[in-house]
Amino acid sequence: MAFNLVLVHPQIPNNTGAIGRLCVNAGASLHLIKPIGFDIDEKAVRRAGLDYWDKLDLHVWENIDEFFEKNDITDNAHFATTKTDRPYFESKFKDSDFIFFGSETAGIPEDVLNKYKSQNITIPMTANGRSLNLAISTGIILYDAIRQTYSSFNKA
Amino acid sequence: MAFNLVLVHPQIPNNTGAIGRLCVNAGASLHLIKPIGFDIDEKAVRRAGLDYWDKLDLHVWENIDEFFEKNDITDNAHFATTKTDRPYFESKFKDSDFIFFGSETAGIPEDVLNKYKSQNITIPMTANGRSLNLAISTGIILYDAIRQTYSSFNKA
Repeated sequence: MAFNLVLVHPQIPNNTGAIGRLCVNAGASLHLIKPIGFDIDEKAVRRAGLDYWDKLDLHVWENIDEFFEKNDITDNAHFATTKTDRPYFESKFKDSDFIFFGSETAGIPEDVLNKYKSQNITIPMTANGRSLNLAISTGIILYDAIRQTYSSFNKA
Repeated sequence: MAFNLVLVHPQIPNNTGAIGRLCVNAGASLHLIKPIGFDIDEKAVRRAGLDYWDKLDLHVWENIDEFFEKNDITDNAHFATTKTDRPYFESKFKDSDFIFFGSETAGIPEDVLNKYKSQNITIPMTANGRSLNLAISTGIILYDAIRQTYSSFNKA
């Protein structure tokens, strides 16, 4: 089973395109929760996703309520934020878990973070660091999930 | 001590900019080996690197021979390539190790890969996968190196 990458209100088409390419390469599904900052059919999305976009298992949700109604989110989810000290690699990932990322500007909405507080994770940074590019961040955490469950990673 | 990220002949300014930002956040040094596909002072590099560029520990080398003359590369290095099956997380990273990435188009030159064959590493991909974005790839491997040596990661 594939991991589920969830982007809450992404703003930059290049990032979402690169993340789509990442998901195809990593065998993950991509969920986009509207509102998003661009037209999903925009050229910039497809360009950054190269010719991967049509191979992507993509789910687009009208709003965050619809997402939580239709998906059973319990302890099967991880929420990336700069507002916790808990490194992502201390989280235990299981096949088909959901990994949430917020928008480039606002992050994951506060009420969602608070509801799942013990499942908040972060990418450790130096004192000079304030934030990483969204696409790079998704790669770092998704591939640690793959590393942790590598015996079931489907290479073929 | 920081890790050393080495880009051999990078072509796309956006990627190098994003990787510069990554390095500042992760406390790594960045080495660029010429020829590179853009002017290092180009706006696109700085824009992708945001205001991180002037905090970056950057080393620019005139060519690959100069790099290998001036840096002692032994078992302290790892070479990312799609031409091996050995996952990067099976490599043991030590503080201040060098992590090499090739250009977006050509990868690391064959003779370098062959010289350090047992130190070649790759990011596992599905059958649908052919390649990952360079900036995302550097994040995935650099942060696994950080995870492996986390007790000495300098957050303050």
